[in-house]
Parts: sequence; structure tokens; C-alpha cells
Amino acid sequence: MLGFDVVIVRYDEIALKGRYVRNRYERALVNNLKMMLERGGARYTGITRERGRIFIHTSDERVIGLASRVFGVASVSPALTTTSRLMDIGWLAARVGDSVIGDGESFAVRSRRTGSHDFTSRDVAVHCGDAILKEMGERGVYVDLTSPQHEIHVEVRGENAYVYNRIERGVGGLPLGTQGKMIALLSGGIDSPVAAWLMMKRGCEIVFLYCNNHPFSDEDTWKRAMECIEALRAWSPIGFRVYEAPNGENLRVFLDRCDEKLVCVLCKRMMYRIAIEIMKREGAHGIVTGTSLGQVASQTAQNLMAEAYQLSYPIYHPLIGLDKKEIITIAERIGTYTSSIGPGSCTAMPDHPATEAKIERVLLAEENAGVEELLQRTIERTKVVKS
Amino acid sequence: MLGFDVVIVRYDEIALKGRYVRNRYERALVNNLKMMLERGGARYTGITRERGRIFIHTSDERVIGLASRVFGVASVSPALTTTSRLMDIGWLAARVGDSVIGDGESFAVRSRRTGSHDFTSRDVAVHCGDAILKEMGERGVYVDLTSPQHEIHVEVRGENAYVYNRIERGVGGLPLGTQGKMIALLSGGIDSPVAAWLMMKRGCEIVFLYCNNHPFSDEDTWKRAMECIEALRAWSPIGFRVYEAPNGENLRVFLDRCDEKLVCVLCKRMMYRIAIEIMKREGAHGIVTGTSLGQVASQTAQNLMAEAYQLSYPIYHPLIGLDKKEIITIAERIGTYTSSIGPGSCTAMPDHPATEAKIERVLLAEENAGVEELLQRTIERTKVVKS
Repeated sequence: MLGFDVVIVRYDEIALKGRYVRNRYERALVNNLKMMLERGGARYTGITRERGRIFIHTSDERVIGLASRVFGVASVSPALTTTSRLMDIGWLAARVGDSVIGDGESFAVRSRRTGSHDFTSRDVAVHCGDAILKEMGERGVYVDLTSPQHEIHVEVRGENAYVYNRIERGVGGLPLGTQGKMIALLSGGIDSPVAAWLMMKRGCEIVFLYCNNHPFSDEDTWKRAMECIEALRAWSPIGFRVYEAPNGENLRVFLDRCDEKLVCVLCKRMMYRIAIEIMKREGAHGIVTGTSLGQVASQTAQNLMAEAYQLSYPIYHPLIGLDKKEIITIAERIGTYTSSIGPGSCTAMPDHPATEAKIERVLLAEENAGVEELLQRTIERTKVVKS
Repeated sequence: MLGFDVVIVRYDEIALKGRYVRNRYERALVNNLKMMLERGGARYTGITRERGRIFIHTSDERVIGLASRVFGVASVSPALTTTSRLMDIGWLAARVGDSVIGDGESFAVRSRRTGSHDFTSRDVAVHCGDAILKEMGERGVYVDLTSPQHEIHVEVRGENAYVYNRIERGVGGLPLGTQGKMIALLSGGIDSPVAAWLMMKRGCEIVFLYCNNHPFSDEDTWKRAMECIEALRAWSPIGFRVYEAPNGENLRVFLDRCDEKLVCVLCKRMMYRIAIEIMKREGAHGIVTGTSLGQVASQTAQNLMAEAYQLSYPIYHPLIGLDKKEIITIAERIGTYTSSIGPGSCTAMPDHPATEAKIERVLLAEENAGVEELLQRTIERTKVVKS
């Protein structure tokens, strides 16, 4: 292994923006990269930015994994740097070729060029291909431009040239913090961490809200929710603020004073109300939930409408169009799946929850329960448990 | 080619439901399959339902493609039927093996069994493997259970057994019509048809609303929107009702009486208001949009909040967690991409739309514009253009 002296970071969606926005997003991306590398304890000597690319000057292998998990990053390549003289590029390409191409194997050189040089990118490819063949031809290596076993990439940019063979896929999305702030409800189940992660991927800063249904839910549910937050930290250059609100007493009032069948809808509305209060306190822009359609009996379109009715602020359900399988696939990929399975559901749930909750009946039930007062009391006892 | 006499249809998410819901979803799925086959002009003699499987009795190749596009279907397999006598199964497995396994190639028999028989599913696999080897052993075929070139599947169910080698992936999701009704805004762009499709996939019946911004948008935009609806019909056992609302005059009033920068937010709110009126008329449960975060300058979290503020009903943005690339991939797959590219944006859009629209200023602008009256007039002139 030759190692590398730089990690090239690419982004695609940001590159489509107008100059002003692109500049802002690129700066955010560089900042997030720096914070992520520092959090991960990776060594690097500097980060530079140049026409659609970010260069992390480092030879620390950990940088590759960390950088590819930063939202907004499309791909990363550990590379070796040389000058933009053809001779130097050819020499380096031969070194890289020698370290990755096995005897009798095929290769192709892929080249790009920006800046002014007295050669074309095709010249670069031909020159490097020749250099590799000269170095390794006796060992049976050969050029195959259509489906080579190895690709040696050469990027010539102004005074410098970069040679690499690895392109690691990045997580994509937009830089965290460029798309406002959202309050994400966290339940301890599989779905809600995936929902929060998808909004993080699209650039939203996340503040978590855990509504504790104790004594109707157990300690395990709480623990799983906190473990999910820990797992999500691996994707974030910054920590999360986490609020915990006591919701058990509200549930007891609903069970006492309202039609039992409506408890799930009333509970969800109460969680939304709590989230809205925190939204205002945090200057946030919306609420995020892990709601799906039809996943459990009470997740009907009619109930979802009753849950959101007249609550004024946007409630985002990023999983609304996904199948259960797709949600699980993401949960596994992002590392929240193992922490979010296991027993422990809410014991306040009636045997037969309403599936067609009528808006008027829900509003009447809320009046009977005195939700405004319940909300007031809950907010007073809501605390930041992590910051 | 041996052909087939039955197409086995599998579903996974439905199978996880309780008995009552599962039964309802299965019936909806069978109905949707029937309508889809009839729409596609495919021949079949009957559809039967049995413990987690649907059997379409047919030898028409078109059934495979049509059935795999019905929401709720996890996979389909064209199969041949025989009795549940081991001898008959072995004979048929040898026929199928003979038609798909080439000389010198490897295979495995995969077997399942439900019902009561005097053999196990392992017995079935061994017997069929032997039958194939006896038939084809001289041609060098051999068993490889780990990574065979061909898999011959045998399902024994009660009196019958089914042998097949193809498993075609279905679209997944939940049966259309089981998750309520949504009003989908359609713009003529790439995103909104994808959003509508994702909600269809999750079982929602869709009614379309096209807000015509003429004279600020051109005929092409209208045409693209209608083409997208046509493309989406390929995924639906039923047709779509399509409403068209004239929105150009509203835009002119906004431009005349309000801060130009707020026009995009005001326009979106007006579209939501129109959609809500249609929602009520249709007895629907929510609104669906193709909104993303940060895709265009005006799609900020702050603007999205101002757009939705106090509109009372749920607005679903199924693309909110997706990258542009992911959206395009879906658009290509579902056949709406080609009809939704091309020029033609709204000329009412200011050069510098607000990116941080303040709620109070938006509400004030609406008062100045007299939105209630505009809405009234628009609804009077909104018509069903397709039913």
C-alpha cells in the first residue's frame, strides 16, 4: 500500500446551486468536516476548497470513513499529490498502478483536467497508461477501457495533480445546519430515529423530544430512545439537545375523562403540542415524526388528519412514503436498528383504538380533558436531559 | 420454454397484519389485481386466495408484468401446477429443470410445504433433486446448494404443488384504496408525480389538483402535468379524478398588492387553500406535495413553515427526506421522468424570492390581497377535467 497525502471530497447537489448559496453550503460543509474529524480524533494538517472539491490534507485512514459520513458529501477518494508536469504525473501513476494492479490484470486510466496546461486530459490518460505499461507490461497487465479490473484516476487541477484508485461513496444530502432546525419526536421504536436521520441528511439541525409515558411505558423504552440518539451522533458533527417531557399523567387524564378509543390520537396531539412549545423556545421550524401509513391499526389517514388538525405548525413525516422493509434497511445502515428493537409498548393503548377518529369528537375530548392546562403543567416539568 | 398455468402472487407487509385487517387488505389486493388485469387486457380464468398467497390462473405472459405493478405485491412467480404426490412433483421438477438448466450448470431445489403430507419439505427437495439429476445427470448438471446457477422452487400446498424458477420483484407497498384519499398537487415538474406515486404505493387513493398559473406559465407545463398523470395510470387499477384550478389571477393580485418577494409563499398557500376545499368536497384526508428542502432558493424551512401555518389540515411531503438523485431515480423507474423535464417555469416568480418569509408579514399580505375572496372565486371556476 502506497498510502495517501490528501482525501478529495466531492459533493453533487451543492454543486447545482447558484453562487451565493453554493458558497454558503460549501463553507458549512467544510466546517462540519472539521468538527467531524475533530470529534473522531483524526489527524489532518488542513482543509482547502477549490472549484467543486474539498481537499483534506492528511494521511490518516480514519478520515476516509469520517468524511464519507458527513451530510453533503457525495464521495471521497484518498489520493497522492504531485505537480502538473506530465512526467511527474506519469511517474506517480506508475507507482499507484504498481501497488494496485495484479499480474495479468486489466486497467484503465481515467483523467480530468481543469486549469491551463499545454496538454489535454486525453494526453494525460495516454501518457499515464504508457507509464504503467512500461512499468508493468512484462507482468501481463493490459489496458481495457470498457470493463477494466482497476481504474486509475488522475485529476489535474492548476499546479497540482492527484492520482487515486479508490472512490468511496458518501452519505449525500445537504450540509447539516443549512436547512433550519426541527424538533424530532423520539419514541424508542425503529421508525423515529430513521425519520430524524433523513431530516439530518437533508440539512436540518435536530433537537430531540422524548415524551416519557411512564408508568404506561417502561425503562427499556427510555433506554432504547437514548441509545438511538447515541447512534445518531455518529452522523453529526455536533451534539443534540434532548428534551424529556412527562406524558404519563396526561395519558391517565385521557383514560379517565375521555373515550378510551381516542387515547392514541389524544396522546399524539399532546406530543405535538409539547413539541410546538419547544419549537417556539428553540426558534425551530417544524416537527419531525416517524409516522407511517397503515403500519399499526391506529395509523389511518383519518386518524393522522385528526392528530394534526388545527395545530398550525408543519409536521413532517419523512417515512410516509416508505415501506417497512425500506425503513428497516435504513435503520440497519445508520446503526439505530439494534438499539430500537425489543419489547416495551405503551400500556395505555386500548384494545381497540379508534381507526376513524372524528375531528369533532377529538376536539370535544380535549376540552373535557383540559388539554391547555395539561400542556402548561407538562411544559413546566419538561427538562433538557442532554445538551 | 415450458410456460406456466398459474402466477403466484406474494405480499409481505400485509402478511404482518392482524386477521381482520389482513383479510380486508387481501380482498382489496385481489380486487386491484382483477382491475389491473382487465385494464391491461390480460387473460386469466380466475383468482384464488390461500394462506398468504394469491393464485392467478393464467398462462398469459402479460399477467406477470401487470401483477408486479400492483401496490402491495412483493413478488410474483409464473409456475406450473401438479398434485401433491411426490412422484408427480418430481416428474414436473425434472421437466422444469430440463427447460432452464443448461449443460454442465449447477442447480438447487428450494422447497416449502404447508398442509399435512406424509413427507417433509426436505424430502421434497431431495426427491426433486434426484429426479433432475436422473433426467440430466449425463449432461453434467450438478447440485450446488450454496451458490447455484439456477434455483428450482417447489411449493407444496395441501392438495397441490407448484414448481417454478422465476421470482419477479413486485412494487411493494399496500393495496391502493386501503389508506384513505389524498389530494395531490401536480406542477408539471419532476417531483410532484413522484410524491403522488409514493403515496399511492402506501395505499392512498389520489385525486389530482393542477393549479394553472396561466398567463405566468405556458401550455407546455400543463401538457407535462397531464402526461405525468397518464404515466401514473400504469400503476393504478383505477383512473384518477383531476381538478384544474385557475391560479393566474391570484398571482396577479399578489404581484399588485403584496411584497413581490412573498409571491411564491402566497402562491403555495393559495394552492393549499384550494386543495383543502377539494379535500372537503372529496371527503379526502390530506394534501400531498412534491416539496423538498433546499432544492430551490425559496424552499427553506422557514418558508415551508410560513406556507403551512394555520392551514389546519395535514400536508404530506413524501420527498422531504430524499436527495434530488433519489427522486430522479424513482421518476425514471415509474416512467414520469421524461414527461416531466423540459423548460417552462412560472414567470410570476420574483428575481429574489424571500428565503426567510415571516409568518406575520405573510398573513398581513394575505389580508391585503383578500385571499378569502380570491379563494371563493377560484373554487367557483375550478373544474374536473378528467374523471
